[in-house]
Amino acid sequence: MIIVFKSNASEEQKKRVENYLTNHGFEFHPIQGEEYTVYGIIGDTKRLLPEDFKVFEGVSNAFRILESYKLCSRTFHPRNTKVKIGNVTIGGNEIAVIAGPCSIENEEMIHTISKDIIKRGANLIRGGAFKPRSSPYAFQGLGEEGLKYLYEAGEETGSPVVSEIMAIKDIPLFEKYVDVIQVGARNMQNFALLKELAHVNKPLLLKRGLSATIDEWLNSAEYLASKGNKKIILCERGIRTFEQSTRFTLDLSSIPVVKKKSHLPIIVDPSHPMGQRDLVIPMARAAIAAGADGIMVEVHNNPEKALSDGPQSLLPKQFSGLMKEIEIIASAIGKTIAKN
Amino acid sequence: MIIVFKSNASEEQKKRVENYLTNHGFEFHPIQGEEYTVYGIIGDTKRLLPEDFKVFEGVSNAFRILESYKLCSRTFHPRNTKVKIGNVTIGGNEIAVIAGPCSIENEEMIHTISKDIIKRGANLIRGGAFKPRSSPYAFQGLGEEGLKYLYEAGEETGSPVVSEIMAIKDIPLFEKYVDVIQVGARNMQNFALLKELAHVNKPLLLKRGLSATIDEWLNSAEYLASKGNKKIILCERGIRTFEQSTRFTLDLSSIPVVKKKSHLPIIVDPSHPMGQRDLVIPMARAAIAAGADGIMVEVHNNPEKALSDGPQSLLPKQFSGLMKEIEIIASAIGKTIAKN
Amino acid sequence: MIIVFKSNASEEQKKRVENYLTNHGFEFHPIQGEEYTVYGIIGDTKRLLPEDFKVFEGVSNAFRILESYKLCSRTFHPRNTKVKIGNVTIGGNEIAVIAGPCSIENEEMIHTISKDIIKRGANLIRGGAFKPRSSPYAFQGLGEEGLKYLYEAGEETGSPVVSEIMAIKDIPLFEKYVDVIQVGARNMQNFALLKELAHVNKPLLLKRGLSATIDEWLNSAEYLASKGNKKIILCERGIRTFEQSTRFTLDLSSIPVVKKKSHLPIIVDPSHPMGQRDLVIPMARAAIAAGADGIMVEVHNNPEKALSDGPQSLLPKQFSGLMKEIEIIASAIGKTIAKN
Amino acid sequence: MIIVFKSNASEEQKKRVENYLTNHGFEFHPIQGEEYTVYGIIGDTKRLLPEDFKVFEGVSNAFRILESYKLCSRTFHPRNTKVKIGNVTIGGNEIAVIAGPCSIENEEMIHTISKDIIKRGANLIRGGAFKPRSSPYAFQGLGEEGLKYLYEAGEETGSPVVSEIMAIKDIPLFEKYVDVIQVGARNMQNFALLKELAHVNKPLLLKRGLSATIDEWLNSAEYLASKGNKKIILCERGIRTFEQSTRFTLDLSSIPVVKKKSHLPIIVDPSHPMGQRDLVIPMARAAIAAGADGIMVEVHNNPEKALSDGPQSLLPKQFSGLMKEIEIIASAIGKTIAKN
Repeated sequence: MIIVFKSNASEEQKKRVENYLTNHGFEFHPIQGEEYTVYGIIGDTKRLLPEDFKVFEGVSNAFRILESYKLCSRTFHPRNTKVKIGNVTIGGNEIAVIAGPCSIENEEMIHTISKDIIKRGANLIRGGAFKPRSSPYAFQGLGEEGLKYLYEAGEETGSPVVSEIMAIKDIPLFEKYVDVIQVGARNMQNFALLKELAHVNKPLLLKRGLSATIDEWLNSAEYLASKGNKKIILCERGIRTFEQSTRFTLDLSSIPVVKKKSHLPIIVDPSHPMGQRDLVIPMARAAIAAGADGIMVEVHNNPEKALSDGPQSLLPKQFSGLMKEIEIIASAIGKTIAKN
Repeated sequence: MIIVFKSNASEEQKKRVENYLTNHGFEFHPIQGEEYTVYGIIGDTKRLLPEDFKVFEGVSNAFRILESYKLCSRTFHPRNTKVKIGNVTIGGNEIAVIAGPCSIENEEMIHTISKDIIKRGANLIRGGAFKPRSSPYAFQGLGEEGLKYLYEAGEETGSPVVSEIMAIKDIPLFEKYVDVIQVGARNMQNFALLKELAHVNKPLLLKRGLSATIDEWLNSAEYLASKGNKKIILCERGIRTFEQSTRFTLDLSSIPVVKKKSHLPIIVDPSHPMGQRDLVIPMARAAIAAGADGIMVEVHNNPEKALSDGPQSLLPKQFSGLMKEIEIIASAIGKTIAKN
Repeated sequence: MIIVFKSNASEEQKKRVENYLTNHGFEFHPIQGEEYTVYGIIGDTKRLLPEDFKVFEGVSNAFRILESYKLCSRTFHPRNTKVKIGNVTIGGNEIAVIAGPCSIENEEMIHTISKDIIKRGANLIRGGAFKPRSSPYAFQGLGEEGLKYLYEAGEETGSPVVSEIMAIKDIPLFEKYVDVIQVGARNMQNFALLKELAHVNKPLLLKRGLSATIDEWLNSAEYLASKGNKKIILCERGIRTFEQSTRFTLDLSSIPVVKKKSHLPIIVDPSHPMGQRDLVIPMARAAIAAGADGIMVEVHNNPEKALSDGPQSLLPKQFSGLMKEIEIIASAIGKTIAKN
Repeated sequence: MIIVFKSNASEEQKKRVENYLTNHGFEFHPIQGEEYTVYGIIGDTKRLLPEDFKVFEGVSNAFRILESYKLCSRTFHPRNTKVKIGNVTIGGNEIAVIAGPCSIENEEMIHTISKDIIKRGANLIRGGAFKPRSSPYAFQGLGEEGLKYLYEAGEETGSPVVSEIMAIKDIPLFEKYVDVIQVGARNMQNFALLKELAHVNKPLLLKRGLSATIDEWLNSAEYLASKGNKKIILCERGIRTFEQSTRFTLDLSSIPVVKKKSHLPIIVDPSHPMGQRDLVIPMARAAIAAGADGIMVEVHNNPEKALSDGPQSLLPKQFSGLMKEIEIIASAIGKTIAKN
């Protein structure tokens, strides 16, 4: 932490900051410049907030030098975290492909699609049973019934399954039925939920919030890690900007940035932000080229009948085409697509 | 709902959309233009999503004409909703002032501040007991103990109290201790929480999400209203933009926009977005001038010792100055500041 | 400037930065922390960019402590700049009201509107002759002819006039016909234009760019001031965000922020961002309450016939109502509306 | 164009809109719904703005159905535009690589770097002579001298050269010295400049504005095309968002979106938005995977000595590595890297 005093800060004003620091067990080193004075703070500054100091009269600014997250920071843990799910390891040289419909609509459709996508090369099956919909009048998902169908599709194909949780009370259901629990964008800072999930013994897929900075995202991951669950996979899914041609602006630059700041694996969901299937494919390829550890794409055998987010679902044939393309792209950077 | 077909859409493509519509009980009227064909859909289109149609081959675009929220829309309910809390009515000609510290730090401080701000003209007392902090290492609030202190401060001063809820399991505590339950920005789309709060018999203060559009905010209010709780107060608290001089960009234009779209009252929290107390005062004044039904400001008798968000807390003397200014501003638009 | 070295930076890496600094005439003071080393740089750091240092191996980050603008900074010039235009002084206790149509459509209309708004209390007349339109097919303004009509309307009413410039080659026209030259949002970083305008002996109205930070805006003002023209008035006109209910998000918080960072006057244009006249009025009031030195609003006697931006133009009667309201609001903060 | 009337719009209000339409030579078709009335407008609606109609009493909304740009729209010109520069054709199956330093610093450096990058596979040389810098105190470029050095480096290597123009008065210099004239992000809506460049007989590289929507960008291209210059190459360079880990958020989704909306070629500059060279490489790869027609990257043989933007410049060896990777990625989608 660095504290910058105004050029006209009085000695008394500085003294009050010094007392605060020593009372809280921190040391400090002053640098006297021509137009300002700067104090460098030494100690476990993770406990301090820059804001704590801006309140003092005479202080002009305060900056954090080190990240506030530690367990998720590459600085302290240089080696990649690898999360093993079934036969796939996410975070190493293998790229994982998660596919499936946006919503589980009925028993038959999830079985049909699951068999089809696994055959075409997907490693994990995704499907929503509890849907976060902005309108209370929109389809809210099949709930437990949907999770059960998903579980059975996983059993039938021998593949792990992923689904999104929305409430703490549903944790037992997710422990029973799914292999990876997804935290959606709208719950990235639902800290009550994060604290509970931190105790669950399942890998967690943490989506980036709609307007979350990368540091906030890693701080949310730190909530999970600090309470014990380190099997965390980050998922970029687009952020909110002024651009209206796409639903969200997929921020692929988060991939190299996260890789630099953190040791956690990161995958990309191009389906939701792009909104239209012909836009999804190039962005899925781009995600792999940018270094993502995997992709999560919506595939539907009959998207015109989908109960939610049909337009962005790939057709099975398109999905196969994409698999071939990313196989080559992965090879360009020394990676491979995970095999089942 | 309006569906726009591409200029080269085939008759068969149109037929498939028509069948979908009639199967779901909707009528449609086609308009044939030179370069496009448009279908106007008639019926309860609240159940439809524009996205549902973009999936069809031949469709170029689809727009919603009416809002997806109905109970919260001024179109269907032209008269202002008024929420009565203690002696104050929010949503009419009276302006309510909610004040207090960011966090309840201990029993004595909340009593001292509460007595002081009520004496200076505040109508309701605010204080955080459960704090949504981006880092797991930051102070998380006193929890139930804090709520209890707040309750007692309310009893002592005879004023209603407001506090933020973060988890469904805490609803009984909030029903016992507070008069208005606040839903924070990070939980605006925590639909599981909204669905439960919809059954609580207390006024709800719904903050705008960090990157929520006004329509999404009103849809979240609709979750509450559609399940029975119509005592909703909206609270603008700033949105996320590229500007870094302030913590968030306080979007005061949401006040007249919400007033036009909805009958719900709207108040403004200028403290969190502005981040520094000398910036809070002009924005609190501006909120009143823009037509807000109230303001919620942080006041602290000793902000340098505050455990959270000290720099943005007004000093008691500043708060009194602000009260005098907004009294005059309110008079300019035919309103008054609520008296206790 | 503060340079932060990585915890594992080698002595040789630090030595290279030190050499760079001494070669460029700067001194530095190191602070040794447990997990990092920080160098404070002393000298005319306005010439340095933080980016210059991030390129060095071993450097983790670099921060600017002082603003890069100096002539426009309140730190170095604590007293308010006051810009005198005709009988009005912008930047003191008087609030200036600039009004008029978006575009000058013909001779008669600008005369009619000008007489009307001056009678109703406006101090300056605005009117566009060169219009920045996103589409080449939209009405581009009357050009020189329009400026001439505006000039004559100014002569007839005895009021100063304001209009927007778009090209360096038009400077002589503007010197001849207008009293205040406006630089539009889209040209805020047209540095070639700024450099030329810096030599013009007329007050300049510098609008904030669509996505300009406040610091960038002040840096653009510094372009003007550094080359000699210090009669600068800033104008907030909304920034681009994800919100679509308004055309831009009017950032009124820029008023107190600019007042803190700079000594330049700042006015607000609520018409363009709000887009609809009933939304303009509350935001004009709010601008005054937030401490703006003036407002610039569109008024049209027949907005349904306007060639551009009709929906946001106030009707003359609405304008009179607004004048009364802001008179009272100004009094709440010890200001008055300028009289002609 | 679609005009939506309020449910309570009177016949007289509709009549006034109808008169306006027929007076301007448009036909209309009304659709009567239960809760609203919609008029579909027929004719050359490119001349109309939705805003023109929102001003009428009784009108609730107005939407554009067709884009306002026509020459740049794929709807009207389905086949890809191909821009030939030297031996390279941009917009077909070949991918062009433009490389070079951010600024031309002196004669020797641009010659050295140019020879090196052409040897390593670049097709065009870039170098800035006129630099748009936010601060007036930062290095502004060598001006004409720089252009001349660049020209000579082009002659020596036999490669076309690209540089950014900032002022109309410099057009003759650019006609003399460069092969492709770049319009920078800050000038994307400098319409005075666009109108002049439209008459120049050189390919134009039009960068996306810092907060420009894709439609605005295509409208700016339309300014060029509508006045005669159709040799337009679009260049994505990042947009402004709340994220602060990168300088701008590179919006790679603009690639497939532009490809869908327009027939113009689009390339990507990953250097400026990413800001650090290790982040540039993955995003350059991703751009190719997303379907870009080329990339423009900064390469410097001695970035620690660069006068501007050193940290984002690739080292020559890194550039060679990137060339190998994108060769493979291009093959995955049936493209090749252009050869000299």
